[in-house]
Amino acid sequence: MSMEKFASTLTDFDLHTGLSKTKKPIQRYLSAMKDMFFDKEACKKQLAEEDVLVYEFFDMGVVESEKEIAYGTSITYPGKIGDEYFMTKGHFHTVLDTAEVYYTLRGDGYMLMENPEGDWEARELKPGFAVYVPARYAHRSVNISATQQLVTFFAFPGHAGHDYGTIETTGYRKLIVEKDGKPALVDNPNWQS
Amino acid sequence: MSMEKFASTLTDFDLHTGLSKTKKPIQRYLSAMKDMFFDKEACKKQLAEEDVLVYEFFDMGVVESEKEIAYGTSITYPGKIGDEYFMTKGHFHTVLDTAEVYYTLRGDGYMLMENPEGDWEARELKPGFAVYVPARYAHRSVNISATQQLVTFFAFPGHAGHDYGTIETTGYRKLIVEKDGKPALVDNPNWQS
Repeated sequence: MSMEKFASTLTDFDLHTGLSKTKKPIQRYLSAMKDMFFDKEACKKQLAEEDVLVYEFFDMGVVESEKEIAYGTSITYPGKIGDEYFMTKGHFHTVLDTAEVYYTLRGDGYMLMENPEGDWEARELKPGFAVYVPARYAHRSVNISATQQLVTFFAFPGHAGHDYGTIETTGYRKLIVEKDGKPALVDNPNWQS
Repeated sequence: MSMEKFASTLTDFDLHTGLSKTKKPIQRYLSAMKDMFFDKEACKKQLAEEDVLVYEFFDMGVVESEKEIAYGTSITYPGKIGDEYFMTKGHFHTVLDTAEVYYTLRGDGYMLMENPEGDWEARELKPGFAVYVPARYAHRSVNISATQQLVTFFAFPGHAGHDYGTIETTGYRKLIVEKDGKPALVDNPNWQS
């Protein structure tokens, strides 16, 4: 059943690690996120020690059209900067009112979301659960496990695009931090309206 | 971290069975597919014995817009009608030039695809591999395992829609059957141009 040329694509994304043997992920090291964590001193200290890999994900390069589906896996590693858990940068979509779905394959965490009006929510990312991020919500994955990667399979409209800048400038309204050994949602003191 | 009302959605899709404890799947029994299998006698015999469940999948009812993502799991059960493996009905999208992605969670099978011009391809559905079905291709999941469900997580543009009728009328150009104990692609003698 072999054909020479395919219109379809077949790609490996390991169900446990989220990684691929054939595609290269985009990697985000702490140095690329140093202004995103609340505790600047802890971040500086970690960077002096080691510039750790915080998360990685795949961009399959599909055509930027509403008829295509951008998809891949996202892997957020366990760790903290101060009390704040490792997380993705998070982003709005450039076409603001487009949705995205994340299906969790492994790990334990939260999807932290907020829209420009200031509504926010946090949803559990746990194996076998899908979170549907509604249109207009910036979204960030947060890994609350001390030991395991948070691995999700995501899909969004091909024309949605990523707007990292907006939420990077203001910061998220909420942070997810460890408090008395448990994850807690707290206000972000550095949030700028 | 509980909120009272969510804009986002959280849904359970078991990573092993593909089923949900909170949502009802759409179920396709053999009686709803009796003209789709090649061996009409074997089909009749099976129906006289028991109207078996061939596959089931979820329709999350997202708004039919290119800004939304339709998603869920699809579960095709093991079995054969004559030599032909259990499969889904298969469909074109109503908006013909929209794509779809299938990520396999469990099992062993093929995605059988063909476009109106007569190009066709078959791609392996195996755990940890994503098949990207290109725009304009009808697609059908085929379970070649004798014992296990074929479980996939799928996502497609919210406005794509399902056109089951076109491919149901002509049939697929190819069948996937068991031959000498192994899956084989053969021409469909009943195919109508």
